[in-house]
Amino acid sequence: MTGKLYGVGVGPGDPQLLTLKAAALIRRARHLAYMVNEDGESMARTIASGFIGETPNEIPIPMPMRIGPDATRAAYDRAAARIGEVLDAGDDVVVLCEGDPLFYGSFIYLQARLFERAEIEVVPGIASPMAGAAALGHPLCARDETLTVLPATLPEDVLKARIAAADAVVVMKLGRNLVKLRRVLDELGLAGQALFVERATWPDQRIRPLTEAPEDASYFSLVILSKGDGTWS
Amino acid sequence: MTGKLYGVGVGPGDPQLLTLKAAALIRRARHLAYMVNEDGESMARTIASGFIGETPNEIPIPMPMRIGPDATRAAYDRAAARIGEVLDAGDDVVVLCEGDPLFYGSFIYLQARLFERAEIEVVPGIASPMAGAAALGHPLCARDETLTVLPATLPEDVLKARIAAADAVVVMKLGRNLVKLRRVLDELGLAGQALFVERATWPDQRIRPLTEAPEDASYFSLVILSKGDGTWS
Repeated sequence: MTGKLYGVGVGPGDPQLLTLKAAALIRRARHLAYMVNEDGESMARTIASGFIGETPNEIPIPMPMRIGPDATRAAYDRAAARIGEVLDAGDDVVVLCEGDPLFYGSFIYLQARLFERAEIEVVPGIASPMAGAAALGHPLCARDETLTVLPATLPEDVLKARIAAADAVVVMKLGRNLVKLRRVLDELGLAGQALFVERATWPDQRIRPLTEAPEDASYFSLVILSKGDGTWS
Repeated sequence: MTGKLYGVGVGPGDPQLLTLKAAALIRRARHLAYMVNEDGESMARTIASGFIGETPNEIPIPMPMRIGPDATRAAYDRAAARIGEVLDAGDDVVVLCEGDPLFYGSFIYLQARLFERAEIEVVPGIASPMAGAAALGHPLCARDETLTVLPATLPEDVLKARIAAADAVVVMKLGRNLVKLRRVLDELGLAGQALFVERATWPDQRIRPLTEAPEDASYFSLVILSKGDGTWS
């Protein structure tokens, strides 16, 4: 019988923000897969490390960041083939996913390659907008507000039009796009209402008004913006 | 010394989706507050019930659903006054919040009333869009997509314009607004791509294509809609 594939969200960084379900699945996993960057580092494995059982079979999935779509697809193909072999042998595989597996997560591409081959269960995780809002103590959205989540990697004109049309906004994946985002928010007269969070819930978390955000913001930073008057009566 | 106020997300329903941090805080809480409806029921307390310690002081906060803004404000004022008394006495208070406290959460209004009086810590929870996506096994958003989250309580023309302009969409708080939403999606030619989830992760969870959604959908149901072609390569 084919094994089962688990996509398990490990949350934003603080290991105490794993769910009970995620922690239990990771503890008893015999096959554990996760993305690793060019340096062999895995943020998801780092977050989950305290819960990993004794000597599971670990399946690091190399995922280069600065390559084109063809190479990315090939990397997912290889990962799916490797995981598929374990599933075919009848064993379950737990894939560790930063944040939530289905919210800008690479698990989406593994699932697309394996859903016809095995049963899949996704365990949701705390996503970075919720972690960022909690770190700031600032609401994401309330009542009849619309929340728009968008990546800062979008072209400048698209970013500007979408933010102009939105109520509450979360802009993710800042990194080098922070300069572009600040320009957009300055032009819209909204920079003063925007809050910056980098690596929410990690020991090196940084929180600032956007106007004081550091120039070296990492990819794992985001901005939360409310257009309301800041009162929540 | 003033006590500390904790806004603790208990997630969408499955108690195993509490975070380790939430479970630990609830276990050792001596004062536990939560919203209750007209029938004295609390969804958040139900979710957290297995983690509640021995005889904490429980502070149910009556929150009628069908009243105007003035009465709602008065209810939050009374709740904040009651919680404030405990904080002033030097004791911590844990407020149980369905889903995530700062994502359409009533904790927003308690926090607004108490932030000048006590230290506040928010513990993020699994929000219903992530739980719904996991239940469906369907991505929320990927790559450069924008995710728009909006309540079905919006006026029909606003709902239609926002969905028309969006990439990926989550429509929350369906209930009796489901009929309106179906009309909007039919008009936009998008009904066939929409998926319905009610009470994600509860034992009575229901999952359907929107075209087969039940007529008696609860308030705690949502629709996930992707405009892509459904392939995730």
